[in-house]
Amino acid sequence: MVPSRGSRTKNRGFIIPIGGAVRKRKNPVILEKFVELCGGNKAVIPVIAAATKVKEVGGEYVQLFTNMGAKKVPFVDIQTRSDCRKDEILSQFKDATGIFMTGGNQLRLSTILGGTPVAQLIRKMNADGLHFAGTSAGAAIIPEHMISGGRSGSTPTPGSVSLSPGLGLTNSMVIDQHFRQRNRLGRLLSAVAYNPFLIGIGIDEDTAIFIDHKQTFEVSGSGAVTVVDPSDIQHSSMSTARRGDAVNLVDVKLHILADGATYNLQSKEAIVTDSPEKQ
Amino acid sequence: MVPSRGSRTKNRGFIIPIGGAVRKRKNPVILEKFVELCGGNKAVIPVIAAATKVKEVGGEYVQLFTNMGAKKVPFVDIQTRSDCRKDEILSQFKDATGIFMTGGNQLRLSTILGGTPVAQLIRKMNADGLHFAGTSAGAAIIPEHMISGGRSGSTPTPGSVSLSPGLGLTNSMVIDQHFRQRNRLGRLLSAVAYNPFLIGIGIDEDTAIFIDHKQTFEVSGSGAVTVVDPSDIQHSSMSTARRGDAVNLVDVKLHILADGATYNLQSKEAIVTDSPEKQ
Repeated sequence: MVPSRGSRTKNRGFIIPIGGAVRKRKNPVILEKFVELCGGNKAVIPVIAAATKVKEVGGEYVQLFTNMGAKKVPFVDIQTRSDCRKDEILSQFKDATGIFMTGGNQLRLSTILGGTPVAQLIRKMNADGLHFAGTSAGAAIIPEHMISGGRSGSTPTPGSVSLSPGLGLTNSMVIDQHFRQRNRLGRLLSAVAYNPFLIGIGIDEDTAIFIDHKQTFEVSGSGAVTVVDPSDIQHSSMSTARRGDAVNLVDVKLHILADGATYNLQSKEAIVTDSPEKQ
Repeated sequence: MVPSRGSRTKNRGFIIPIGGAVRKRKNPVILEKFVELCGGNKAVIPVIAAATKVKEVGGEYVQLFTNMGAKKVPFVDIQTRSDCRKDEILSQFKDATGIFMTGGNQLRLSTILGGTPVAQLIRKMNADGLHFAGTSAGAAIIPEHMISGGRSGSTPTPGSVSLSPGLGLTNSMVIDQHFRQRNRLGRLLSAVAYNPFLIGIGIDEDTAIFIDHKQTFEVSGSGAVTVVDPSDIQHSSMSTARRGDAVNLVDVKLHILADGATYNLQSKEAIVTDSPEKQ
């Protein structure tokens, strides 16, 4: 699904995929930055934990954002598709300035939320300026094409990744998370090799990208972001290789970006400036 | 150490790094190709197992190459640096058409062989046409700059790789092995980020590259070879990042090459042609 165009009178809100295992207590830069972006002491941040059956997961973020000074942090208790049609659920999004989606299983997320009034509301509100952050499964579900599973390993093979329709807040990229920690370059390369119009974004744990309405993102956190730009690929043997075969991919462009680096998803250019005191 | 120039009257022999866990019984294409290259039933292939204390490792390859029809497969029993000066050891290389070096620990290899008459002999004989194959540690030791250790993970960090001087049969690349299986892209990227004149070659298990005297290699085996070409790198923050920090690397060129694909280490071009029956 292409991203909602909303009312077209406002800029799209930030889209913030987080690579999982985000720091919550000591130096939680990513979460603090998110709360600040949502308005600090004026922030209203509904938390959705539908990716997991463990209710404590959502409650923990409610507590964290409240402690960080947010004005209101409603816990949106979605467990079924029918929940996503209830007025008392939909009303919890009123006045929201940001939404946070926890980790768990992205297929649980997509099967519960997909096509429901909650999904439609999130899509429209993000187009109209609401910021959306999701970690792990909550990050995976962000794009039109969602990585729903796959095998670990650094080289791509047919069948090493499975794609499913996601929430569709963006359609220019495919996102993978726990990237370095779970050795996922191969499945990200496989995903972009299927159709090189997508940019592959691999996000390490405790790392996030803050994507603005101009399609530029900035990296934040302690890990790195791996950008796979397939636009110059000369050859992909993905169509002819058999399941489990090694695959040829010639001329993939790769960037590794750390905290503070920026990347423009349209011009496909990275901008990195080392801070002066480090030089 | 730059590669030996030998007598300059003959072409350099093939250099064949293998990514470890090479198939030995069922369909051992890489080892068979090596024996054929060395002359088939005229092949004389000394086997060096100095990388390991386990004597059976060398004996197994002696048996394999003999079964594949090689004329003579002497086991060169090197355990110490003084062994590398003995005439009875050096004489085992007489009439050799290829040398095979087993896996184990590449630092054991380099500390035992480094700078000895055996190392000098291998360097000179390879320059004069002798083929050299090594698997795992035996592959790592091939270049001038050898990866002797490091941490797993797909993104580079300072301190995630340690380099030591290798045998120096080639100085255009740095080689890593068990590549996909042990998640080693990060340490290979770290190695090339230190000094982008090197091309990084990551070889999966049961996969090899056959490098000819014109510096073109062909991939053989069931896995893939990851080529990291850093020549266009716009930015490497390796000098300013601290140990454990994420590192910025902008514009790395990446190729994933499977069986039959070729790559020229001088022009830095990959050539991939899918076999017609597959198209």
